[in-house]
Amino acid sequence: MRDAYHEELHSIGEGLVEMARLVGSAIGRATTAILDADLKLAESVIAADTKVDDLQRDLEARAIALLARQQPVATDLRIVVTSLRMSADLERSGDLAQHVAKLARLRFPASAVPRDLQATVLEMGQLAQRLMAKAGEVIITKDVDLALQLERDDDAMDLLHRTLFQHLMDDRWQHGIETAVDVTLLGRYYERFADHAVSVAKRVVYLVTGEHADELSHQAPAEPGATESA
Amino acid sequence: MRDAYHEELHSIGEGLVEMARLVGSAIGRATTAILDADLKLAESVIAADTKVDDLQRDLEARAIALLARQQPVATDLRIVVTSLRMSADLERSGDLAQHVAKLARLRFPASAVPRDLQATVLEMGQLAQRLMAKAGEVIITKDVDLALQLERDDDAMDLLHRTLFQHLMDDRWQHGIETAVDVTLLGRYYERFADHAVSVAKRVVYLVTGEHADELSHQAPAEPGATESA
Repeated sequence: MRDAYHEELHSIGEGLVEMARLVGSAIGRATTAILDADLKLAESVIAADTKVDDLQRDLEARAIALLARQQPVATDLRIVVTSLRMSADLERSGDLAQHVAKLARLRFPASAVPRDLQATVLEMGQLAQRLMAKAGEVIITKDVDLALQLERDDDAMDLLHRTLFQHLMDDRWQHGIETAVDVTLLGRYYERFADHAVSVAKRVVYLVTGEHADELSHQAPAEPGATESA
Repeated sequence: MRDAYHEELHSIGEGLVEMARLVGSAIGRATTAILDADLKLAESVIAADTKVDDLQRDLEARAIALLARQQPVATDLRIVVTSLRMSADLERSGDLAQHVAKLARLRFPASAVPRDLQATVLEMGQLAQRLMAKAGEVIITKDVDLALQLERDDDAMDLLHRTLFQHLMDDRWQHGIETAVDVTLLGRYYERFADHAVSVAKRVVYLVTGEHADELSHQAPAEPGATESA
């Protein structure tokens, strides 16, 4: 019985890794779609999100069935509950990648991102994809050091987000209000995506160490303001 | 034993209602703070969010302890797992109210909201507060009809959000980029806050009927675009 149990637990973990892989790929492709104004690619990202949603529903059902059937306690119970939370983070990340793709579709055939911001948005997209790849790796390896690395990467994302805002607030901004609104939302999508990746990693740290990652980490949260995460 | 169990379950429910009350009050006060550029009020909203966070941590710990000790199955298990999710929704709503307050603080002594948008933002704030009050009532009463009402209220929020965007996109917009960015984020905070209130209500529907609220509801999701929720 215990064997079947741990097999099911392992398979739930594999499902989470697959979700991380899918949403990491989605944010990468959505970034390409918005930078290149590639409608087809945008549509494919939008359509692919149902697969992430299905995976989450399936994982949730299995986690709850596991709770009911096996009634785990202590660490095992924490693993199952944490898996439920990680799947919610990953599902939400998928939504955010989809939002980037929808913005690409909305502005097609134009690009929502002006030329002088393309490099910054590309960096944000790549960093988001890397963060999610690392989150997936953390789920597999339970590597606490790697998990803490994600927080540093997230600081880099905050910096990029701030750069974006500096461009917006610059008196020389010439792209008008619609683009300012698009770029504001876009910055937020990437920042929130990164937050969810970090959150996944932090949950693994909590499982491994029993301590919340905040207590292990190197710095206080960033100051609030227009670049605040929500 | 069962009695102590149901008492604990009831007390977790009461904690959720208290969280809903706190975050409902927070979004109302944050809205006043941003419209009146009231720094003191903004600070008090920001400080009060720790209470919501503490409540959530406490509720989570108790829900997990309940799972470990009582090992509920079937409906009882669903209730506990759903409580965990609702507490996450409510905690996030508290963050969003805090973001509104932080924006008020950032722009003090000015108001982040230009005069011609104050009525719309006031309406969004009031609607958000009402939605959360109803969500709290749904947790208490398990009233499915009231839960479905929340979805209609959320449509009203989407409309307000769209109104905000129309103002932003209007050629006659005269408030500059910084205010456009502020209003974009503000609109998003309210919209997401409302989404979380609806999500709480939907989870109650699922507990009561065993069906996801989407299947009971009256309409398809709104079209995407700049007003898309994320």
